[in-house]
Amino acid sequence: MKRDDSFQAVFEPASVAVAGVSPGSAGERYTDYLLKYGFKGPIYPLRPKGGEFRGVKIYPSIKDVPGLVDMIICCIPAQHVPQLLTDGAAKGLKVAVLHTAGFSETGRPEGRELEADVLRVAKAKGISIVGPNCMGIYRPKAGLAFAYDFPRESGRTALICQSGGNSNFLVRAAAERGIRWSKAVSYGNASDVNETDLMEYLIKDDETDIVAAYIEGIKDGPRFREVLGKLSVVKPVVILKAGATPAGKKAAASHTGALAGSDAAWDAVFSQSRAIRVDSLDELVDMLVTLRFMPVWLKGKRIATMGVGGGVSVLATDECHNAGFVMAPLDTDVKREMTRNVTSDAGVMLGNPIDFPFWAMSEEHFRDALRSLLKWDGIDLFLFLAPLRQSEPPLAEYVPFVDYQLSNLIKVAHECGKPTGVVINLLATGQSWLAASGLQQKCYEAGLPTYHSTASALKAIGRAIRYHESR
Amino acid sequence: MKRDDSFQAVFEPASVAVAGVSPGSAGERYTDYLLKYGFKGPIYPLRPKGGEFRGVKIYPSIKDVPGLVDMIICCIPAQHVPQLLTDGAAKGLKVAVLHTAGFSETGRPEGRELEADVLRVAKAKGISIVGPNCMGIYRPKAGLAFAYDFPRESGRTALICQSGGNSNFLVRAAAERGIRWSKAVSYGNASDVNETDLMEYLIKDDETDIVAAYIEGIKDGPRFREVLGKLSVVKPVVILKAGATPAGKKAAASHTGALAGSDAAWDAVFSQSRAIRVDSLDELVDMLVTLRFMPVWLKGKRIATMGVGGGVSVLATDECHNAGFVMAPLDTDVKREMTRNVTSDAGVMLGNPIDFPFWAMSEEHFRDALRSLLKWDGIDLFLFLAPLRQSEPPLAEYVPFVDYQLSNLIKVAHECGKPTGVVINLLATGQSWLAASGLQQKCYEAGLPTYHSTASALKAIGRAIRYHESR
Repeated sequence: MKRDDSFQAVFEPASVAVAGVSPGSAGERYTDYLLKYGFKGPIYPLRPKGGEFRGVKIYPSIKDVPGLVDMIICCIPAQHVPQLLTDGAAKGLKVAVLHTAGFSETGRPEGRELEADVLRVAKAKGISIVGPNCMGIYRPKAGLAFAYDFPRESGRTALICQSGGNSNFLVRAAAERGIRWSKAVSYGNASDVNETDLMEYLIKDDETDIVAAYIEGIKDGPRFREVLGKLSVVKPVVILKAGATPAGKKAAASHTGALAGSDAAWDAVFSQSRAIRVDSLDELVDMLVTLRFMPVWLKGKRIATMGVGGGVSVLATDECHNAGFVMAPLDTDVKREMTRNVTSDAGVMLGNPIDFPFWAMSEEHFRDALRSLLKWDGIDLFLFLAPLRQSEPPLAEYVPFVDYQLSNLIKVAHECGKPTGVVINLLATGQSWLAASGLQQKCYEAGLPTYHSTASALKAIGRAIRYHESR
Repeated sequence: MKRDDSFQAVFEPASVAVAGVSPGSAGERYTDYLLKYGFKGPIYPLRPKGGEFRGVKIYPSIKDVPGLVDMIICCIPAQHVPQLLTDGAAKGLKVAVLHTAGFSETGRPEGRELEADVLRVAKAKGISIVGPNCMGIYRPKAGLAFAYDFPRESGRTALICQSGGNSNFLVRAAAERGIRWSKAVSYGNASDVNETDLMEYLIKDDETDIVAAYIEGIKDGPRFREVLGKLSVVKPVVILKAGATPAGKKAAASHTGALAGSDAAWDAVFSQSRAIRVDSLDELVDMLVTLRFMPVWLKGKRIATMGVGGGVSVLATDECHNAGFVMAPLDTDVKREMTRNVTSDAGVMLGNPIDFPFWAMSEEHFRDALRSLLKWDGIDLFLFLAPLRQSEPPLAEYVPFVDYQLSNLIKVAHECGKPTGVVINLLATGQSWLAASGLQQKCYEAGLPTYHSTASALKAIGRAIRYHESR
C-alpha cells in the first residue's frame, strides 16, 4: 500500500460505502454501526435492489453513488470483489475493508487465486486492502466500529489483531477494565495492509501510547523485526503470538492463511525487541491494564496485600512467592500505627498478608490504618484483595461495604502515591460478577488497575517491572 | 475425638444450640441457617438477655435449655468458651462447632493457652471440637449450613476445608457448575477434629464418592499419609495445599496456627498416594467437575474442538499441544460427512480445530454433522467451545443461538457416548456472564462438564486421565 496517505483514509475516511446491504446481512450491520457511532461523512449503502436503510438511501451499485468514496466496507461474496474494486476506482476509492471471506484461508487454489486477483486490481488502481476475512476498523473518533457495544470514547491504546473474534473480545474485555482505544484493526488474511504496516504507522501515531497485537503469522520476517524494534523503543508493545505450537501453526494457516513461523524465529523477535510477550487473551488484557494504570516508577518487588479472608491471604502469599515478589514483614511502628484502632485480633491477620477487620472500625480509622501502610517505604506495591469472592448474593449489604472500602482505598492511594492494584476475583455466581463489574469501573475511573486474580495481577506487574527496567 | 459416634453428632445432630445470638451477630445468622435449611430437631438459640428470634425462644444459658443438646455452634468471645463447654456437658453435649476465633492463630501465648484449655475441658467431658476459627458444617440433608445460598440438594462430593472463606467460595463455585455436596467441613485451627480424622471418616462414608480438600497444615504427618493412602485408593481425593511456599507457610501459621510442613514432605505425600494435587481454588473446582462429569473411560488424548471463531480455535490448538493433547486430523470420510451440508467454507475452518458455520444450516444438518464427528473413533475427547466470548450484549439473539447448539450437542453426545466437555469462556461483561451461567446449568444438568477456558479444561482432563491410568 502507499503508506501514509492510505492510513488517512483507513482511519478517517471522508465517505464510506458498504457493499452487500441486504436485510439481516453483515452489510446492514456495518451501515448501522456507522449511523450509531456518528460517522460524519456521507454513507452509501449498496445493494442491487436499492431501497432504504434507516432513512439512508441504498444505491444499486457504487457506480450510482453521487460523490467520491474514500472507503468501502465489502460484505459481498468473494467472486464479486474484483469488479467492485474496479468500479470503486472510478469513484476515487482509497481503501477497501474486505469483511468478505473465502480467499486464501480456505486452502483451495481458487481461493488463493481470487485473493491474488483482488490484490492485483487493488494495486493497479491504488486501493489499499484491509483483510480479506476480517472485521475491519474501529476508531471511535471517526465513527467507525464493528460491534454495537464498543466504547464511544477514545483512548490511547491501539489494537492490531489478525482475528475478528479476538478483536471483538479484546476491545470489550479491556474496556470493561478501563482501557479505551485510539483505534483497532482486525486485518484477517493481511493480503495488503499487514501487521508490519500498522506497526510502522503506529510509531508516529500521536493518538497512541500503547500497542496491543494478536498475530498469527507474518510474511516478511526481517521487515517485521526491524519495524517492531523501532516501535517498541518508543511505545510499549504487547504481543500474543498464536499458532506458536506445531499444531497451532497448521490451524493458523487454515484460519488466516498465515505462515506462523518457527518458534526460534519468534524467540529471536522477542529477544531483539522490547516487545512484551503474553500467552493468552486474558494475559494480554492484564498487561494493557498494568501499562495503562500502574505507575512507571514501580520498580521493586516488596509487596503488601490486604483483604478479608485468611485462606485467600495464604494463597496470595504463595502466589507472591511464586511470582518473585516478597511479602514484606511489617515494620513494628507501621504495624502499631495500622492496628491502633483494631480492638481484637480474633479471626484476622495483622501481619502481612493482612486479613483486616474493616467491619469493626470507623471509616476514619480504616483510612488511618491504610495510610500508615501506604506511606511506608518498606513496600513498593500494594494489592487490595476486594473481598467479593466469598460473598453471598444478592449482596445487598456486601457490595456497599466493599464499595466503601474501595472509596477509601482510592483516596489514600492517591494521597500516598503508592503503586496500588485491586484484585476483584472471578466470582462464583453471575450476580456477584455484575457487582464486581461496577466496582471495577469505580477503580479504573480513579486510575487503579484491576485484576481477576492475585496470580494474574502479579504476572502482569512482574512483566511491567521487567519492561521498565529494560529501558 | 471419639471417632465414629462423634461424627454421627457432627453430621446429624439431634438438637443444636447456638451461643451468642444477639441482633446482627454471627449467632443469629447460624440460627437462621438452621431454620432456612429445615433443620428437623430442636433449635436452642442462647443469649443472656433471652428473647425470641424468628419465633424461636432464646434461652439465657445452655443450662436453661429443656432437653439434651447434641451440638452447639459457638459464636461467643473466646474467653467464655471453656465455661460454655462445662455447662454443655451437663446437657449431654457431643460436638462444639467453634466459629469463635482468637485462639492459637493469633500467635499470642494467651491464645494458645486458651485453645489448650478448651481442648482440655472438651476431652475431659467427651466433647468433640470443630474449629475454633471456622465456619463449621454444611450438610444439606441434615439442614446444616453456613451461608444462605448453598444448594439445598445433596450430592456425592465432600469438602474438607481449613479456611472458612475458601469453603464459602468452593461450595458456591462448584455448585454453579453442577457439583452437589454430601457434606463440607470448615475446620479452622483443627484443635481436635482435623483433616486426617475427616479423611478417615470419609473412607467409609457411603454418601461420598469424591473428596476435595484445602489444607494449610497437618499436625501428624505419618498418620495423615497413612489415612490419605487408604482414602485415595477407594475414592478420588483432590487436594489444594496452601502455604506451600516459605512465605505462604508463615501466613498459614498466622491464619490457622497451622504447621505447613516442608515442600519435600508434601511431594512425598502426593507421590505416595493417589491424591490429585491442584494449584488453585479454580483448578480444584475444575478437577471436581471433571471427576464428576467426565466419563472414567476417557483414556486417550486425541481431541477435536468445535466452536465459532478462528482465532479462538487457533489459540485452543496451541493450548491442546501445550497440554499434551493431539488435535486429530479429520479422517477424509468423516470430514466429507461432517461438511456435506456446509454450503461455503468462506470464513470458517473445516479441519480440526473446527470453526463451524452453525448459522448456515438447519438444526437437523447441524446434528448430523456433530454425529459424524462424535461417532468417529479417531478422537477420544470432544471439546465444544461455546461461542459466547465474542458476543454482544444484550445477547437477545445470541444466547438462544448458543442454547440451541448446546441442546443438539447434548443429544448427540448422549447418543454417541463420546467424552465431551463444554468450554464457556470467562466473558468480557457481566450480562454475558449471567447468560453463560444459565448455559452452564443446562450442560451440567445433562451431565456434561463445563469449563471457563480451554487451557483449564485440558489441565483438569489431563489430570483425570493420569489419575485413571494410575489405577
